[in-house]
Amino acid sequence: MDAFMQVAIDEAREGLASGGIPIGSVIVHRGRIIGRGHNLRVQKGSAILHGEMSAFENAGRQPAEVYAESVLYTTLSPCSMCSGAIVLYGIPRVIVGENVTFQGEEDFLRSRGVEVTVLQDEQCVAMMRDFIRDQPQLWNEDIGEQD
Amino acid sequence: MDAFMQVAIDEAREGLASGGIPIGSVIVHRGRIIGRGHNLRVQKGSAILHGEMSAFENAGRQPAEVYAESVLYTTLSPCSMCSGAIVLYGIPRVIVGENVTFQGEEDFLRSRGVEVTVLQDEQCVAMMRDFIRDQPQLWNEDIGEQD
Repeated sequence: MDAFMQVAIDEAREGLASGGIPIGSVIVHRGRIIGRGHNLRVQKGSAILHGEMSAFENAGRQPAEVYAESVLYTTLSPCSMCSGAIVLYGIPRVIVGENVTFQGEEDFLRSRGVEVTVLQDEQCVAMMRDFIRDQPQLWNEDIGEQD
Repeated sequence: MDAFMQVAIDEAREGLASGGIPIGSVIVHRGRIIGRGHNLRVQKGSAILHGEMSAFENAGRQPAEVYAESVLYTTLSPCSMCSGAIVLYGIPRVIVGENVTFQGEEDFLRSRGVEVTVLQDEQCVAMMRDFIRDQPQLWNEDIGEQD
């Protein structure tokens, strides 16, 4: 297991432990973590703090040059909002934990030149599968789906 | 001038007055404002609080049914992040103040079924033209461009 994906998974587990949705993300610049976070919909009543967005926010204001040399790790295939943020800031590479439980905008990312690697990690799959089974309404809210 | 676009412009001006980037947004559900905000990059040191994202955050957690009956107003053509949020939540209609100073992801929005109307409002154009002239570095940072 990639050590950075393990940090993203740790973030996801922290989110779950605090009553939230178990998705975590890490932004790594030249081998160093510059931002990390997890989904905060429940904890902060937030519509925008998905795991990846939390990692961007935690990284703070960065110049384009830093994003251009960064890799984003996320436990789950990124939705259109998070994919849009990745494209906006020109992150060249995204490592995805799994896309079995939710298929995000990987094609859009690739069409904009982002290299996307999906690990299909069993920990990530199990975490989301259990969560969606236990909290389907909350999950639908997070991805803008009607119940 | 549409009254809701005027509220978005008021938000943008408030952002400028507090030292920030003059972009404002309003989300309207069945004729009632449920979320409003402006770009808070400077004020909150935020990489994700674009005007539209601030409006989503201010609206709080909403079910898909509410977004499906909402209109988003923004003073400037929405970037990939904000367009991704619009698509995620299924906002069916977006009213854009102008796309002269920045061309966002209108084609992407339309390809996902979003109705996009561009007003080409002179107040909006002048506000951004002046800002980009005065603060080019800050503007480049906000759209992920290198100086």
